[in-house]
Amino acid sequence: MPPDRIVSACVLIIGNEILSGRTQDVNLAHIANELNEQGIQVREARVIPDAEDEIVAAINECRQKFDYVFTTGGIGPTHDDITADCVAKAFGVPLYIHPEIESLIREREAPPEIMASRLRMARVPEGAELVRNPSGPPGFQVENVYVMAGIPRVMQQMLEAALPSLRGAAPVRSRTVTAFVTESQVAKPLSELQDRLPHIDIGSYPFSRDGRFGTSLVARGTDESELDALSRQLRELITAAGGELTD
Amino acid sequence: MPPDRIVSACVLIIGNEILSGRTQDVNLAHIANELNEQGIQVREARVIPDAEDEIVAAINECRQKFDYVFTTGGIGPTHDDITADCVAKAFGVPLYIHPEIESLIREREAPPEIMASRLRMARVPEGAELVRNPSGPPGFQVENVYVMAGIPRVMQQMLEAALPSLRGAAPVRSRTVTAFVTESQVAKPLSELQDRLPHIDIGSYPFSRDGRFGTSLVARGTDESELDALSRQLRELITAAGGELTD
Repeated sequence: MPPDRIVSACVLIIGNEILSGRTQDVNLAHIANELNEQGIQVREARVIPDAEDEIVAAINECRQKFDYVFTTGGIGPTHDDITADCVAKAFGVPLYIHPEIESLIREREAPPEIMASRLRMARVPEGAELVRNPSGPPGFQVENVYVMAGIPRVMQQMLEAALPSLRGAAPVRSRTVTAFVTESQVAKPLSELQDRLPHIDIGSYPFSRDGRFGTSLVARGTDESELDALSRQLRELITAAGGELTD
Repeated sequence: MPPDRIVSACVLIIGNEILSGRTQDVNLAHIANELNEQGIQVREARVIPDAEDEIVAAINECRQKFDYVFTTGGIGPTHDDITADCVAKAFGVPLYIHPEIESLIREREAPPEIMASRLRMARVPEGAELVRNPSGPPGFQVENVYVMAGIPRVMQQMLEAALPSLRGAAPVRSRTVTAFVTESQVAKPLSELQDRLPHIDIGSYPFSRDGRFGTSLVARGTDESELDALSRQLRELITAAGGELTD
């Protein structure tokens, strides 16, 4: 694969609890960091409600638009867990009770009514591969769509299990230069530098610390030696603008 | 406005630093909670990169689809701050230097080059209303699109300034019942309860604490007395299922 080819991913965060503000999502940052190590860039994330039409539409739009789609949430045993149903509908295939998951679930005995609810978690779309996790029922993969739990610890285990099946390009590396300097002080030379290096993503992020304003400049690209050279240029640029490096 | 009318919002989180996993977004939960108090429900959120085509497309899609759109990020003075340009392009209007913001920015003296960068923050689309904040250059509003900073403290001030201009429906209230009970134990009666109350959103969120599994049941709706009654039903349902209420 040529080094400048981007392998893209979209994260679909499914759940009313995130949209209502009740629960703070922490899965996106974890997924982005892990995928990046595999050379896969998260190019979009969406938080969508537990509503069939919206989930199906988002899956179908995003699986066309991105190399990979990762969903989190909605794969438990209750009525609001409809992600498996939606993935099946998006791909136009039926759900079936996966025998391996069924065996796993039946290992722990329960009254029939509770077992019936648990077995909802054994339902996967026809043609799905399982994404195993040591702590319970697995997630699954259909083509380029990976379906994972919403609970961060479980999601992380599923993602780890999914990684070997992913094919990325060169991982994006970053260099950060932090200084007490305002964004305006460095804006012009920074913009000129970015224009000369279109294949590198240079970001500028202001902060205030101990009552002083500062800026973190972050360069992201795939060539480590180029990033090292750019990092030196960024430090010179800041010093020339009258800024004070923090390290 | 009839009480069952939903006023919807979409949050567009603009920034490579969120998508790369470098920065953890905390704005969505804050915006969702504040808007909810105004009777406005966040029905979708998207995290999108600092890329013109994608920002313009997302703004134009979402301002049609939702009553309100709130953007965060990309309104500083550097080359990667392109939100104002994108909003102008989405609405097909030019940017201009807003005299009031210009005066504010020129209050603090600076060399011409630095001033020129700062004045990028005075550019607003024609027809925009300002969304003031006490700590610096304002955000702005064009029709149903509100453009705010990405830095949480600044964003929060802008949102507070924007709230009086918003028109919501009845605020959604919630009741949470937490118990040591597995989701599977309550899944069936919970599903039956949800079927009987389609206008209330009943969510089920598992957790593990001190090595024990538990579930939080969250009921969301606009009628407080109905929610109180439902809360009692949820407690009875859990006890009947053999669960142990935590409060």
